[in-house]
Amino acid sequence: MSGGFCRVSSVLCRFSSVFRKRRFVSAGSVRFGSGCQERLCRPLLSGTVDRFGGVTVRDFPPDISEDEFEELLRERRVAVWLHVPISLSRLSAAAARHGFSFHHARRDVAVLSLWAGHGEDRLPAFATHQIGVAGAVVDESNGKVLVVQDRNKTKNAWKFPGGLSDLGENIGETAVREVFEETGIRSEFRSLLSIRQQHNHPGAFGMSDMYLICRLSPLSYDIDFCTQECLRCEWLDLNELAKTGETTPITSRVARLLVYGLEKGFHNIDLTMEQLPAVYSGMFYQLYHRRLPEMHSLQNKDSK
Amino acid sequence: MSGGFCRVSSVLCRFSSVFRKRRFVSAGSVRFGSGCQERLCRPLLSGTVDRFGGVTVRDFPPDISEDEFEELLRERRVAVWLHVPISLSRLSAAAARHGFSFHHARRDVAVLSLWAGHGEDRLPAFATHQIGVAGAVVDESNGKVLVVQDRNKTKNAWKFPGGLSDLGENIGETAVREVFEETGIRSEFRSLLSIRQQHNHPGAFGMSDMYLICRLSPLSYDIDFCTQECLRCEWLDLNELAKTGETTPITSRVARLLVYGLEKGFHNIDLTMEQLPAVYSGMFYQLYHRRLPEMHSLQNKDSK
Repeated sequence: MSGGFCRVSSVLCRFSSVFRKRRFVSAGSVRFGSGCQERLCRPLLSGTVDRFGGVTVRDFPPDISEDEFEELLRERRVAVWLHVPISLSRLSAAAARHGFSFHHARRDVAVLSLWAGHGEDRLPAFATHQIGVAGAVVDESNGKVLVVQDRNKTKNAWKFPGGLSDLGENIGETAVREVFEETGIRSEFRSLLSIRQQHNHPGAFGMSDMYLICRLSPLSYDIDFCTQECLRCEWLDLNELAKTGETTPITSRVARLLVYGLEKGFHNIDLTMEQLPAVYSGMFYQLYHRRLPEMHSLQNKDSK
Repeated sequence: MSGGFCRVSSVLCRFSSVFRKRRFVSAGSVRFGSGCQERLCRPLLSGTVDRFGGVTVRDFPPDISEDEFEELLRERRVAVWLHVPISLSRLSAAAARHGFSFHHARRDVAVLSLWAGHGEDRLPAFATHQIGVAGAVVDESNGKVLVVQDRNKTKNAWKFPGGLSDLGENIGETAVREVFEETGIRSEFRSLLSIRQQHNHPGAFGMSDMYLICRLSPLSYDIDFCTQECLRCEWLDLNELAKTGETTPITSRVARLLVYGLEKGFHNIDLTMEQLPAVYSGMFYQLYHRRLPEMHSLQNKDSK
């Protein structure tokens, strides 16, 4: 422990092997303290180092005292991430006394961070947006669209059924699920029609909201709506929805898009979706953009 | 405290006045414990009640002991939100012993929640997505677009400059800011071109990623790129970018869209943005969708 990596501070004593294995992209700008006090060199905490030199500690001995923990924290000299189990939350208070703050928390782990590099905090932020999705289910045979009125809103206005995306759920999946839960109508995803971004959204815990409206095709027609969520649910004429004042501005706008789509072709208003493989293993992403006349042949070229 | 609201549990003793003031949407499904033990009725904790009957506690006496706190928690009978300051994190461990878990945390406060209603947890989730935005700055005079190669990626591929949105930042603002920070080019927002959704995104702390590419117009042309972030930065011919293998699939796809836009008009590929007033006071949102020939006259109707 007394070689080159003993520049690694006491809190990081066991990190030395990790340092050796991993490549530092910006090693020059990373400093790890000024010495290794033998007293603290017992392997109390272990962690990993990211490519920016940030250290992440995930494992804490359950019996570590706040005093011991603080002693270790005092020596840190680099961006540090602490994954503190909820049962050891007392350590978060101790870390806060050394400048740490909450980066995020979920379920039974809080993640604290400390930027100790030069200049302003360059740590990546946690998620900032909730995603809400609504589905405009259009019955092309009669020009009607499925709309609901919320039970829990003071002003009752026609809107498309929808709700928040669950973690890991695709936009289209949310639309289809929410439409079914609220109205009993089964449907399938066709395209993305509009995106709204709103900050300080009420009910977003100080975060922002992205609200997307999709075009769906009905697979069933008999309404069986959720009386807990909805006051009314109907198949409404699109022209009527586009004109009524008894709706929200966005619903009205999208109704007008849909009227145009019904008349002139939905390709005029659609953002179509494609699922593509991500660069890293086994994952896919969904890409939405305008489909051009040329895209079909381009796609064929893509797959060659 | 012995009237109807003494059904409110001991932890909620001081809530009774709040209950009286606020309307319960689903009061029938909310139960608040079975009695009020005088011993616990001193006003240790106060809180507010939301329209679903959920209770939020934000103020904790700094000297409250874990034992006292747990005694209070034992009596709760409703969805409860605890906003625990980082300095009192020991209370989070105590709450966890009663079934609470982290809902989210930011800076110096952790928010814990407990769903004690009927059926599955119906508490709204925290933000699930980070938002990344890239800007395709197109010089219409010569058909070139501004591209960079990342310094920190192993495979160097041309891509549009971009990065994560700060909290509260609009999509277009992020694009313009990131383009300037990475390349030194000043630009202005024109439209949204594509949206990618990806789950389990690396670097998103287990959350999802929404990556949007905007079309920007240049306001300056002399590149002065950030050598910390970029290896190379150039104005590249759009046709070349659309054909090269030295790029990412999404960049290639958007380059093809832009080639088409240059030739046939950007209205074929754009989602244009409008800022509209939100229903609640003083806020605005940004709405993106296809602009139709009719939209201009529709907008005039809107403003009447």
